[in-house]
Amino acid sequence: MTWENKIMRTVRCRNPQTRGTLAKLLMAIADEGGTVGAIRLIKESHQAVVRDISVYADDDRQLGNILEAMEANPGTRILAVRDEILELHQQGKIAIRSRYKIDNLYTLRRVYTPGVAEVCLKIAEEPSLARSYTAISHLVAIVTDGTAILGLGDIGPTAGMPVMEGKAMLMESLVGLSGVPILLDTKDVDQIVDTVANIAPTFAAIQLEDISAPRCFEIETQLQERLDIPVMHDDQHGTAVVTTAALTNACRQSNIDIKKATIGQTGLGAAGLATSQMLMSYTGNPVLGADLSQEALARFEAAGGIKSGLEEIMQKADVVIATTGAPGLIKPEMVREGQIIFALSNPTPEIEPEIALEAGAAFAADGKSVNNVLGFPGILRGAVDTQVPYISHAMYLTAARTIADLTKEGELVPNPLNKDVHKAVARAVAEQAIKEGLARSDFVSYVDD
Amino acid sequence: MTWENKIMRTVRCRNPQTRGTLAKLLMAIADEGGTVGAIRLIKESHQAVVRDISVYADDDRQLGNILEAMEANPGTRILAVRDEILELHQQGKIAIRSRYKIDNLYTLRRVYTPGVAEVCLKIAEEPSLARSYTAISHLVAIVTDGTAILGLGDIGPTAGMPVMEGKAMLMESLVGLSGVPILLDTKDVDQIVDTVANIAPTFAAIQLEDISAPRCFEIETQLQERLDIPVMHDDQHGTAVVTTAALTNACRQSNIDIKKATIGQTGLGAAGLATSQMLMSYTGNPVLGADLSQEALARFEAAGGIKSGLEEIMQKADVVIATTGAPGLIKPEMVREGQIIFALSNPTPEIEPEIALEAGAAFAADGKSVNNVLGFPGILRGAVDTQVPYISHAMYLTAARTIADLTKEGELVPNPLNKDVHKAVARAVAEQAIKEGLARSDFVSYVDD
Repeated sequence: MTWENKIMRTVRCRNPQTRGTLAKLLMAIADEGGTVGAIRLIKESHQAVVRDISVYADDDRQLGNILEAMEANPGTRILAVRDEILELHQQGKIAIRSRYKIDNLYTLRRVYTPGVAEVCLKIAEEPSLARSYTAISHLVAIVTDGTAILGLGDIGPTAGMPVMEGKAMLMESLVGLSGVPILLDTKDVDQIVDTVANIAPTFAAIQLEDISAPRCFEIETQLQERLDIPVMHDDQHGTAVVTTAALTNACRQSNIDIKKATIGQTGLGAAGLATSQMLMSYTGNPVLGADLSQEALARFEAAGGIKSGLEEIMQKADVVIATTGAPGLIKPEMVREGQIIFALSNPTPEIEPEIALEAGAAFAADGKSVNNVLGFPGILRGAVDTQVPYISHAMYLTAARTIADLTKEGELVPNPLNKDVHKAVARAVAEQAIKEGLARSDFVSYVDD
Repeated sequence: MTWENKIMRTVRCRNPQTRGTLAKLLMAIADEGGTVGAIRLIKESHQAVVRDISVYADDDRQLGNILEAMEANPGTRILAVRDEILELHQQGKIAIRSRYKIDNLYTLRRVYTPGVAEVCLKIAEEPSLARSYTAISHLVAIVTDGTAILGLGDIGPTAGMPVMEGKAMLMESLVGLSGVPILLDTKDVDQIVDTVANIAPTFAAIQLEDISAPRCFEIETQLQERLDIPVMHDDQHGTAVVTTAALTNACRQSNIDIKKATIGQTGLGAAGLATSQMLMSYTGNPVLGADLSQEALARFEAAGGIKSGLEEIMQKADVVIATTGAPGLIKPEMVREGQIIFALSNPTPEIEPEIALEAGAAFAADGKSVNNVLGFPGILRGAVDTQVPYISHAMYLTAARTIADLTKEGELVPNPLNKDVHKAVARAVAEQAIKEGLARSDFVSYVDD
């Protein structure tokens, strides 16, 4: 049973104002195998207190037991059990909005016919004006075929929609881009490439999302060859950027020089391959790599990596990054004194950070600490605004450096909801694009209204 | 030079408070060949008045002459000349919005990982839940290949974007649907069908827009055969619905029984063919049809129409509908006493309504009076909410009847921005869907927040 398979309910309960009641209540939940998330105070009097408690359970049966145990607590009454997440998802989480109200014919004639015709003709004459006078300037396709949704696997594009909407929300909230989910009814590489290329004029960039390896590599490469706008597979490059940023900070905090360290990467799928590529270009040194797939190893070697195995990596590497999807793969006895260990598989890491630290690691983190949300919004904003034809390695690397530099003392990465970080990433990416001569515009803008 | 090719500027000018000054100013504009749109009073004192005057000109040279002539008017000073339409189009007219603010990690975990996983799994188990818990419930693709944008022709999909955004604005404003422009980088019928079918899981309906005939017929038919969601080519069915509604009212006002009248249709392109088809199904009688293309005539005959010619139609028909794109095609001497004439070609009709009336027509209208905006929003809302697999003829016909019935005494159609009309159309379309057994849901909802 994984974290992502858990169900979450918001339980509103009323307790007497007696010392220790809440503690007993939480213990009752824990005893039945439930875990507790947020606790919010709703109201209180001298006699009683009403709270919303987020309760996570494995399934409905366990939830039932938990609720029973809660009510068995003296004086406790459950007032309501709500599925708040489902409520939030009613009718979806995104919508198209007009940037102007059309409440009279005067406005209608300006934003629609006949006024619109003049704008159409201007663009027909000078196509680059579309970036000034249409929403193409901020539309980003979020494309998935549903083959690798979160840690859930191939659950299909429609079931993946809530994730795509989540990405779109983050793009809007954090950098003012308009992410448009595009759910593909095909898993065929050629068809995916043709389809996305055929609708590409609509967008300023294409974000590929939750597409399984190795298809994701070919799709990204082929699409980027055909299109004149950035194509970014977030599970590769977004993850690589944020992991590199986090690793930079972990090295700083552990007094390890990342440029001199031996780095090992176990698991060379989308995230692993991209991360090791970024680290090789950042440090100038090859990375040791392990994977069960010969195909993945061959790709890794072609990218400049050195074929290795898990045991060898654990013995030789100062820094170990694991993206294998195999829970508990790294045993405590394999950990070397002073190692940095990033066990990034979600929802269950290759080794729990506490266990790695106990076994002698200088620093340990899991996937929950390395949040993708930090990367893609700013990277895309910078790339879209400068109208680059593609995102270069140096642009990704700049994003990683910026995120690392903006991290507070003692933390691994910044708060992912800090807009200043995303703005800084966007600016750094844009500056790098200008420096490399890739930029076709030198503005970095925000659609705020 | 057509209306749609005119340029429009907002001229802010200051005049002395002298009787007749505005009249002289407007005359000066007219003398140079300009026309005047809205006039807004900005401010006034005892001595002077400042107004924004919308001025239409054929080109920049003529605009220069008009501005010169305005300033030559005694006491008039031009304070500013603004291209307000272009200003409105800066960065486009639509954006994606989040329906919730993500301003803390608590919300992030609910709308994104890990909370979102539970919703994904629910949908994976029961795909129909996507209509409850994702934006698919209100997303409508607005698809164009740019081959027939307004009356401007094949100016390409990117140049057509301002029109698609206008449609999206109207969908949102009038019925709460989320229209997503999809610009196609291909004109090939098979590729268009494949591409749209491949992205169809994203949407509750597909609106085809400004795609040239005869390709539009095949694309709509093939797509509808492949997809389980409504596919609607607005230039066909939207136009047919609004024209039928207007015609119903014109007949009422002219005491002509539409079910007994001889109806002639000249111009059998997308709009003409669909309109005559709807009128045949409404009246139960065949329509006389004329077109220069043998292919178009064949399609018309296959649909139950009677092949005819312009002359014969003008001689025999009680009701003449012209959608030929040929300005001035109908000469005054061809008009019969008591005829109803809809000369719908935009921007210049086959015969100006005043001239037709002078020549003896009982009723005459042009394309400006028959606004498409009245049709598609309500039709789509009704179809999307009932989750029909396609939109039936009867559903379109119900929309036409509803629009006709909601028209105020003496008018041809209702105000297109009247939301009550769109709601009524949505409900009528939904009821018809339920009656026909096409509905897979019997709710009609509005996304308001």
